[in-house]
Amino acid sequence: MLLEAIYHRPKQNWAYAYDRNTIHVRIRTKKHDVNRITVYYGDKFDCWQGLEKTEAAPMTRLYQDELFDYWQAETVPPYRRLAYVFKLESGTETIWMTERGFQKEEPTPTKSWFEYPFLNPADIFTPPAWVKDAVFYQIFPERFANGDKSNDPEEVLPWGGEPAPDNYFGGDLQGVIDRADHLEELGINAIYFTPIFEATTNHKYDTKDYMKVDPHFGTNEKLKELVEACHKRGIRVLLDAVFNHCGYSFPPYVDVLEKGEQSVYKDWFHVREFPLRVVEGIPTFDTFAFTPMMPKLNTENPEVKQYLLDVARYWIEEVGIDGWRLDVANEVDHQFWREFRQTVKAVNPDAYILGEMFHEGMMWLQGDQFDAVMNYPFTYAMHDFFAERCIDGVQFAQAIEHQLASYPQQANEVMFNLLDSHDTARLLTLCGNDKRRMKLAALFQLTFLGTPCIYYGDEVGLDGENDPGCRKCMEWDKEKQDQELLDYYKRMIKLRHEHAALRTGSFRFLYAKEQDQVIAYERADEEEQFVIVVNNGTRRRSVRLPMAAGEWHNVLTGEMHQASGIKMPVPIEGMSAVILRR
Amino acid sequence: MLLEAIYHRPKQNWAYAYDRNTIHVRIRTKKHDVNRITVYYGDKFDCWQGLEKTEAAPMTRLYQDELFDYWQAETVPPYRRLAYVFKLESGTETIWMTERGFQKEEPTPTKSWFEYPFLNPADIFTPPAWVKDAVFYQIFPERFANGDKSNDPEEVLPWGGEPAPDNYFGGDLQGVIDRADHLEELGINAIYFTPIFEATTNHKYDTKDYMKVDPHFGTNEKLKELVEACHKRGIRVLLDAVFNHCGYSFPPYVDVLEKGEQSVYKDWFHVREFPLRVVEGIPTFDTFAFTPMMPKLNTENPEVKQYLLDVARYWIEEVGIDGWRLDVANEVDHQFWREFRQTVKAVNPDAYILGEMFHEGMMWLQGDQFDAVMNYPFTYAMHDFFAERCIDGVQFAQAIEHQLASYPQQANEVMFNLLDSHDTARLLTLCGNDKRRMKLAALFQLTFLGTPCIYYGDEVGLDGENDPGCRKCMEWDKEKQDQELLDYYKRMIKLRHEHAALRTGSFRFLYAKEQDQVIAYERADEEEQFVIVVNNGTRRRSVRLPMAAGEWHNVLTGEMHQASGIKMPVPIEGMSAVILRR
Repeated sequence: MLLEAIYHRPKQNWAYAYDRNTIHVRIRTKKHDVNRITVYYGDKFDCWQGLEKTEAAPMTRLYQDELFDYWQAETVPPYRRLAYVFKLESGTETIWMTERGFQKEEPTPTKSWFEYPFLNPADIFTPPAWVKDAVFYQIFPERFANGDKSNDPEEVLPWGGEPAPDNYFGGDLQGVIDRADHLEELGINAIYFTPIFEATTNHKYDTKDYMKVDPHFGTNEKLKELVEACHKRGIRVLLDAVFNHCGYSFPPYVDVLEKGEQSVYKDWFHVREFPLRVVEGIPTFDTFAFTPMMPKLNTENPEVKQYLLDVARYWIEEVGIDGWRLDVANEVDHQFWREFRQTVKAVNPDAYILGEMFHEGMMWLQGDQFDAVMNYPFTYAMHDFFAERCIDGVQFAQAIEHQLASYPQQANEVMFNLLDSHDTARLLTLCGNDKRRMKLAALFQLTFLGTPCIYYGDEVGLDGENDPGCRKCMEWDKEKQDQELLDYYKRMIKLRHEHAALRTGSFRFLYAKEQDQVIAYERADEEEQFVIVVNNGTRRRSVRLPMAAGEWHNVLTGEMHQASGIKMPVPIEGMSAVILRR
Repeated sequence: MLLEAIYHRPKQNWAYAYDRNTIHVRIRTKKHDVNRITVYYGDKFDCWQGLEKTEAAPMTRLYQDELFDYWQAETVPPYRRLAYVFKLESGTETIWMTERGFQKEEPTPTKSWFEYPFLNPADIFTPPAWVKDAVFYQIFPERFANGDKSNDPEEVLPWGGEPAPDNYFGGDLQGVIDRADHLEELGINAIYFTPIFEATTNHKYDTKDYMKVDPHFGTNEKLKELVEACHKRGIRVLLDAVFNHCGYSFPPYVDVLEKGEQSVYKDWFHVREFPLRVVEGIPTFDTFAFTPMMPKLNTENPEVKQYLLDVARYWIEEVGIDGWRLDVANEVDHQFWREFRQTVKAVNPDAYILGEMFHEGMMWLQGDQFDAVMNYPFTYAMHDFFAERCIDGVQFAQAIEHQLASYPQQANEVMFNLLDSHDTARLLTLCGNDKRRMKLAALFQLTFLGTPCIYYGDEVGLDGENDPGCRKCMEWDKEKQDQELLDYYKRMIKLRHEHAALRTGSFRFLYAKEQDQVIAYERADEEEQFVIVVNNGTRRRSVRLPMAAGEWHNVLTGEMHQASGIKMPVPIEGMSAVILRR
């Protein structure tokens, strides 16, 4: 066995409380190197008596990436205190792994055992229950629908024009209310709005007033009306908390700009040198990126903290929003987010906290900060396989499983799985305007673990390059909407809502090969089993899959297939998918 | 290069803020496998322009254990946002490591780079500055000194009798005050007291009243007097916070025991089944271990939390203690400790929070919970090498370096390095009553990184097996004290106080070989350099060490040695040590 490849460290994704009784234990080994792993566990005040006092849980090889196998076992510590060791077997070789390293002999003293010291409910990472059943829809309000011409900006352009970084088309909250039928028919049950508070830009990421809806979008009352209208339709509403930085018209910033060190707000920001100015392209104060119009807020300053926490509380309490998406979440201090979580959950324990980050987010997903993060590593894998087609089935499966192995199961169940957004080119454009690729990507997204999010307009065939191209006006002319695509989205969303197995069932790849664009995977819970085959290549294929004996229903065509219990050939056209249900 | 051995994951001990400007980045590789590693880093909004916009920091091979090399580089991100990648070289082979894995080509797009998103001061793990200069002394108050016969328990036995689990010798706080000269002369500058609040046992780990000093030890006023007396001598005082569980005479517990589910305190505990009782040796409620006399407190209950946080605040505010040692710290929920830290630091930012655990404690040392943990993995390595002599120099060095690699540098500087305690046999006994072994262990402890702690009486030659043997009365008869040993301790403590390099200087082994009991190591800062050679074998030896040219002063003998810059032979008697200073 390659000892150097074996990895385990208590907590994080390696040993975590799954619920009030269960601790999941994971270990990593070199790929194809170990045949069997057993975790021996017991109460730490008991199992010092020897292995006979412990339980033996066989571990399952759950995931695999380019280099490693990832194994998992469920343990149920009798008194919530877990001590454990691993027994690894390969051929005739047996190795034990304890906290002190590897040994050939059976380990006895518990001082060398790994420990999950106590399963305290307060420490269990527990996202709100509704999130794993949600299908999100992201709205960029300036471009979704213009429902009230009276609040249009002066320079408003005719709906459907060419988007530019600084132009306006008059989208507003009334527009969303007016178009709620579309959302309900599409089947989504949660909206994530990019910022709607008063700001100077069309994207509103430069907040001027955190307590006020932007007048071009409507009023605070209008937002309340929108939230109520959404709730009536079973749609939850998430707002964008831009707390990393404010806008250059935010009054405390204006004050510091004017008064410099004399300003009472001077400690609201991170100022390297007064007066505030830009020297050779670099502001003398911290900002988002190097953008002087977005000064970074000093979230360690108790006044700033109080202000922002009041904001967080206000919109939940007064307007009834269902949670916050946190902009540039990983650049704000952990301590601020811990207090943010306490504040938000005190007002509504079911409120959802979603952090934006483009990287792995384990450090924010340990129960004290976020409920989920925007899952860009998933996005990249999806683009590579479905859009750019630069990786094969095995590489895709490895990227997906690597991702799954890096988070606890309950985090995977609520990962915010987006395929595009206002910060990327549109999915259709990324797919080279090949709708077939796009549909396969959406199918995978909507039949995978985690919370899918659809960027407004994707469902009717909107395309567009990176900002500003991806921020086109929503197409409301039914003639110009891609109705076939829209139907497809509706069908896939409906399928997801109808079958819990597609949301929270187990996930495993059944087929993924080198230089092969076909993948197959299984989603299963105690009620149902799905086998999904995706042919991301252009040739018709037939793949032999291990399918349980019985009748399988082709969800897309209605056909029935009889499986005998041995590997069954599943024929599949190029650039298409088969969804089989048992 | 063995890719499976290479490990890095942002945060924890792998990429952490060392101070307001510096982020330490570490990586692990297979031992002796990689020749050179460079970390390329820059601002994440800048280095997308390519490697030429980044800094290149060569990494230093800092530590080594049985299987791995651990490398570290210091990075100074220009705008506190760090993006980085690793370049690993071995012979003609070059591999890049990014967040997405390994590649042969130079990585360009920053989306695949690792990130430390922003160096926020609030998240820097920062123990109080005084701790790294402290030498602790652990006092078990019932057995240290009897200064007030009037508060003796009824069943008190003559001082110096055989300790039993349930007998009393009358030690008290006045005794500590009376013996403060001994402490000052010994040179310690901090005391950790095992519990002193009212309880029924001699060890007081079964608290009855958290707001009251045990009457057999004195009064709250007496404690205040003791703390003031200590402070006058530059000695800090740490009390034991037994918050995981209370005693069976704690009034809320008594109430639940009496009234069962009708008690208003029923949610103060973790009750599996009313009434509270013991069934086949297992209490129907959670306890420390399976001890019904120590019911586990429900630290998630806001009332319990408030009560215990008030306790934590009270003794700092009213009595002026300098911090808390947390009993069974890892079985209490993380959330409680986060609030505990906020509470304690709000009253005194310099208060010290030390968690008891017998395992690796990274999850508690990230700035939001503890300042340090009791470093039992260090203790075990010390016992194995110096006391039981069951490992050789290499195995010892590997155990020590493995330990150092698992924590951030500033955590290593304050690790609570104990060699024995009221929970172990005494050091002298562990050393088979061989004083030479004990002295070498103490020498290593007192010249190593971290905060050494001496268990009361070790310095005068007290021995004793596990509890109750290790809880003997302190020997105050100078005739019976081992004066030679006492002088040795005084000398070593003084040496530590006089030379910052021994406290916070860099540490590296210079010599450690298989089946060889000699070790040599260096401690160095910008002012001074120490080379310390310990011969833990019985034969006289001479080892050749790489020593900088110049005059070296033998600290223990006063001799001078001239080093020429090439490897210098250092002769050393069996079971002895040489400390050379330049």
